[in-house]
Amino acid sequence: MTRVGILGVTGYTGAEVARLVLQHPALELVAASARQAAGQSLARALPAFSQLRDLIVDGEDATPAQWRARGVELVFACLPHGAFAAQAPAYAAAGLRVVDLSADFRLALPELYPVFYRMQHPTPQLLGSTPYGLCEWNDADLTGAALVANPGCYATAMLLAMLPAAAAGWVSDAPVVVTAVSGVSGAGRGAKLATHLCEAGNNVAPYKVGEEHAHRGEVSQMLGRAGCAAPVIFNPHTVPMSRGIAATVALPLRAPVTASQAQALYAQRYAAKPFVQVLEGGALPETRFVRGSNRCDLAVRVVNQGHMLLVFSCIDNLLKGAAGQAVQNANRMLGLADEVGLDVGGMACA
Amino acid sequence: MTRVGILGVTGYTGAEVARLVLQHPALELVAASARQAAGQSLARALPAFSQLRDLIVDGEDATPAQWRARGVELVFACLPHGAFAAQAPAYAAAGLRVVDLSADFRLALPELYPVFYRMQHPTPQLLGSTPYGLCEWNDADLTGAALVANPGCYATAMLLAMLPAAAAGWVSDAPVVVTAVSGVSGAGRGAKLATHLCEAGNNVAPYKVGEEHAHRGEVSQMLGRAGCAAPVIFNPHTVPMSRGIAATVALPLRAPVTASQAQALYAQRYAAKPFVQVLEGGALPETRFVRGSNRCDLAVRVVNQGHMLLVFSCIDNLLKGAAGQAVQNANRMLGLADEVGLDVGGMACA
Amino acid sequence: MTRVGILGVTGYTGAEVARLVLQHPALELVAASARQAAGQSLARALPAFSQLRDLIVDGEDATPAQWRARGVELVFACLPHGAFAAQAPAYAAAGLRVVDLSADFRLALPELYPVFYRMQHPTPQLLGSTPYGLCEWNDADLTGAALVANPGCYATAMLLAMLPAAAAGWVSDAPVVVTAVSGVSGAGRGAKLATHLCEAGNNVAPYKVGEEHAHRGEVSQMLGRAGCAAPVIFNPHTVPMSRGIAATVALPLRAPVTASQAQALYAQRYAAKPFVQVLEGGALPETRFVRGSNRCDLAVRVVNQGHMLLVFSCIDNLLKGAAGQAVQNANRMLGLADEVGLDVGGMACA
Amino acid sequence: MTRVGILGVTGYTGAEVARLVLQHPALELVAASARQAAGQSLARALPAFSQLRDLIVDGEDATPAQWRARGVELVFACLPHGAFAAQAPAYAAAGLRVVDLSADFRLALPELYPVFYRMQHPTPQLLGSTPYGLCEWNDADLTGAALVANPGCYATAMLLAMLPAAAAGWVSDAPVVVTAVSGVSGAGRGAKLATHLCEAGNNVAPYKVGEEHAHRGEVSQMLGRAGCAAPVIFNPHTVPMSRGIAATVALPLRAPVTASQAQALYAQRYAAKPFVQVLEGGALPETRFVRGSNRCDLAVRVVNQGHMLLVFSCIDNLLKGAAGQAVQNANRMLGLADEVGLDVGGMACA
Repeated sequence: MTRVGILGVTGYTGAEVARLVLQHPALELVAASARQAAGQSLARALPAFSQLRDLIVDGEDATPAQWRARGVELVFACLPHGAFAAQAPAYAAAGLRVVDLSADFRLALPELYPVFYRMQHPTPQLLGSTPYGLCEWNDADLTGAALVANPGCYATAMLLAMLPAAAAGWVSDAPVVVTAVSGVSGAGRGAKLATHLCEAGNNVAPYKVGEEHAHRGEVSQMLGRAGCAAPVIFNPHTVPMSRGIAATVALPLRAPVTASQAQALYAQRYAAKPFVQVLEGGALPETRFVRGSNRCDLAVRVVNQGHMLLVFSCIDNLLKGAAGQAVQNANRMLGLADEVGLDVGGMACA
Repeated sequence: MTRVGILGVTGYTGAEVARLVLQHPALELVAASARQAAGQSLARALPAFSQLRDLIVDGEDATPAQWRARGVELVFACLPHGAFAAQAPAYAAAGLRVVDLSADFRLALPELYPVFYRMQHPTPQLLGSTPYGLCEWNDADLTGAALVANPGCYATAMLLAMLPAAAAGWVSDAPVVVTAVSGVSGAGRGAKLATHLCEAGNNVAPYKVGEEHAHRGEVSQMLGRAGCAAPVIFNPHTVPMSRGIAATVALPLRAPVTASQAQALYAQRYAAKPFVQVLEGGALPETRFVRGSNRCDLAVRVVNQGHMLLVFSCIDNLLKGAAGQAVQNANRMLGLADEVGLDVGGMACA
Repeated sequence: MTRVGILGVTGYTGAEVARLVLQHPALELVAASARQAAGQSLARALPAFSQLRDLIVDGEDATPAQWRARGVELVFACLPHGAFAAQAPAYAAAGLRVVDLSADFRLALPELYPVFYRMQHPTPQLLGSTPYGLCEWNDADLTGAALVANPGCYATAMLLAMLPAAAAGWVSDAPVVVTAVSGVSGAGRGAKLATHLCEAGNNVAPYKVGEEHAHRGEVSQMLGRAGCAAPVIFNPHTVPMSRGIAATVALPLRAPVTASQAQALYAQRYAAKPFVQVLEGGALPETRFVRGSNRCDLAVRVVNQGHMLLVFSCIDNLLKGAAGQAVQNANRMLGLADEVGLDVGGMACA
Repeated sequence: MTRVGILGVTGYTGAEVARLVLQHPALELVAASARQAAGQSLARALPAFSQLRDLIVDGEDATPAQWRARGVELVFACLPHGAFAAQAPAYAAAGLRVVDLSADFRLALPELYPVFYRMQHPTPQLLGSTPYGLCEWNDADLTGAALVANPGCYATAMLLAMLPAAAAGWVSDAPVVVTAVSGVSGAGRGAKLATHLCEAGNNVAPYKVGEEHAHRGEVSQMLGRAGCAAPVIFNPHTVPMSRGIAATVALPLRAPVTASQAQALYAQRYAAKPFVQVLEGGALPETRFVRGSNRCDLAVRVVNQGHMLLVFSCIDNLLKGAAGQAVQNANRMLGLADEVGLDVGGMACA
């Protein structure tokens, strides 16, 4: 059993990591921290985990050395963007391996952080060497990695949809238009008027549209590595549900393709990947089918006489888009199979 | 007072027409029909209207002549697509004027009906002369019209977003990509597994994507009249709420424009239109703000160095997308101002 | 036209009063205040009312004299409990008539305020003479009233269900058990974790149960006036919807009654009341049928061999439970019929 | 590994049993049947289980002998009430052990079936000897049981709340009033207007109130065994969420008790039960905290000067109220600990 600590356990991604760790056969939860619940049992801080009466939540002042002394080996950092970056060297020095669920180590170039996150990166020396843990597109051996950057939720949904075509050289230089919707948990657990049930409960709201959303950074970085320079126009929306992302990607192509060519490209690329399913027979993905699962469901369509590829992509933003992929990355760091502790299936009634 | 009858009163659009007629100062509801509620009072068929104990719902066999004999002057036809087309001449012969909320008279060319609706049109002679009642783009005098075709819900949201740019000659020939979401009432009131709360309640589902949805027909027709030949790629989705449409339209442009040019074009085009609001100052439309209102809220953004225009459009699918616009058309047929009986504002908590 | 001002216009009850005033044929909205939106147009503070660009929201420092000088005649006070009580004399002195939607003037005895609201009442001299505006049980002439206390939302649902039996002397001295559920708007518009869509969206939560909820005060006061001394055990819950209250009342009876006696008692009591409907034929009320309406739907059942009466009561908490009843009271203060400006019917799809 | 078959796998309880079996360390899913999905893979019938491409769903005509021949040892019967009763002897004859999730074997007396279920029981000889599997109140050794009756969802929530007081002899003969709400999955997966998102999505609806609901049968049976003869008045409601039950129970007492006596009674009774949690310190249960868990959360309150006990009870209707308790019973039939394969914790964001 690998002993685990969670930074930011009371946020939605932190709580979901806790749930996955608790049901994981090779991980054991031994430490957790949260600003507001310090001193409480985890059972009290998160009543869904009523059995955890003996795990006392630490405050933000718990040090890596203290956690190491308590036996922690692996840390899931579930903090707001910008909060973990400066602390990373201390965790490494203490011998704690980390999956970072924030954006702090997703971009390889320090100069991109002011652009996308309005921050000067405090530990730029770590950026180049930190793996970007989009598991289906990362073949690096992580068994020696001290730090892995877990991809963003929207970025995961988009990149799994885009990369097969981009890597095949199919995508032209015209803008790729992505419109996506997300459950409200994507906005975090802080109390805001916009997330009030009476505001968000019967509402669809676009936000940070066009060229404003930060996930464009990691998406363009990965497209670039695949040889694709197309600009990404990204229009995210919130919808009245707690969890789930549906992304619809329109890729202008260099040359016309057929529907069967597109289907074959995607089916072959993901044939051996347990958490990506390419639907067949005209089926389209729906968020209900991946709710509670670490899976990404994809469907492809060819339109405009073969000149445009549409890809529909659904994930659970808290699982494949956050906590699930983080455990998938932890599995790789520990030399385990991707699927260990992660159900492929979801809840048929959610 | 103009005396009104409603065909198909127990569907969502029919019930919403009834609600609007009941609060309209110049309309009086005197007849209604529905297949399943025949013989019941409207109060029993639609318990929200408990005061209507004396209005007995007719079956489908009620004839236009019978309704005319009971004083009906104006009919709202809220029937499934294909059901009213063959009956239209009988209503005209009986002297009943009609706003048809179905698709039966939206397309001008008979040969488009097999393409978009898989039907041979039974009364093609009426198609050419029936006005398409997209009120903000229809300047025809309707005071003599016997029949008006009410636009589709998605088509209304899209066209109000596209037409200013299209009519200005801004739009290139590259595909226009529209991604839209709709509340579940758009699927009608029939009991289906897909609309079960436990299926639809935490779900986003694309359907009829790419080049499959029938509303592309009326959209292309109107774009063509505006001189725009761009193909429309349309990706509709259902989202877990009862009513509301948010459409996101990406228009590739012939030549670059500035944000202020785009804002000015749209603001001027709709300045005198009470039911279209072009948002300013970076605001984006949200469906909650138009819920219960006949309004369409729009926002424009220029991206890709001026080469692409994004337009965000929100309506209440049952009001501006159906019953509200139908009453707006009825107002014009009766020589009334557009706003009569139609609240511009919505419900702040819905 | 009577000129109206609204204190606290950006809360859910304030905004709903605004919506009703805007569609009322005899009321005109000329002033509004709100702590957080001061200086903004009402259109900006409440985007649902986009047409109200010229009405600028006042801050809390607007005085009654200033509003009077601007022509305000009637004020709807939609402030948190305890905020209006001390200001009431100044409004009276300025000649402004007030419907107070808070609890500040609902209880007749000053000594009850520390018990139910943990406050010393600042203007106890006004308590005895202020009418309690439960319209169906208040026959006083309000045309001269300077101040009317609008009942609480739960209290309205309960009292309309209880009072016919209580006034008939049917109810024993054993505890009356009421279990009720409310939409989340009952908790107000402040941002709290408990109202976050991801917390409240799939949740039912009891709160202030047993003998804790303040509405027990006004309920017991009205039961007492009807000669009933039974204690009230009240168990409120929040449920995942924005608006609506369903209350289920179990009344132990002094002597057994038959179902037809109970039906007759309730039907006769409310026969002439346009906003209370006693259902027949085994029908039960549902919140969807009163959503958007000022109506209260009731159904009665006799159980335990005639010794217990069950009454089921549904209202829209923001309408009959707040803003709708407030306008009903304003109508009476102005000598108008109860129904003026208030739709009896609701939205068939909400 | 015990090999499992599921009758009625495409209903909500059947699908939830499937999910639990798939993650259970000692159970293996090898057969499943469903009327409408016969011949499809389970992956296609229930897209949430995309990995199950090789398990083909049987039709209703699959025989116990066929399943036995395929190695099935244990069957979960998830059929509508009345469907399994006649088949039970054939399953026993084939050597298949069964957990029946329907009501067919919950009542011990045949003459109660016409009263509560309007059916003559076809196999009354099995009724007396079939254990009622309310696990926390059933100490029988199930390792030899051929058939176990899984309790009803509401009955589980109510009985866990009532039985400690009833068994202690605290409850008087006055009516016990229970008001409960349930998520819509309780109504099953069949497509009905009442479960349409646009009807149920913003609605609370009482149904089968007073003395009409069938679960009163098993509740009264268990109360009677505990020596309590009080009549049960039960008022169930549906609320707009997919899963979860909150029951509020008001128990009139023979003699007054204190809050600490009540807390001690309940805390001691359930101290060793992993799936029942008695909350402390004034906390009240909420359905969100048990969503996705097999737990029942309880809280007790003493009111009316000690003469009435209120108990608040929350479960996930598909888990502790159906599939979870069924697996708990299967664990006992197999000699395993109650907790095997059943997470105690739920989802913090659901």
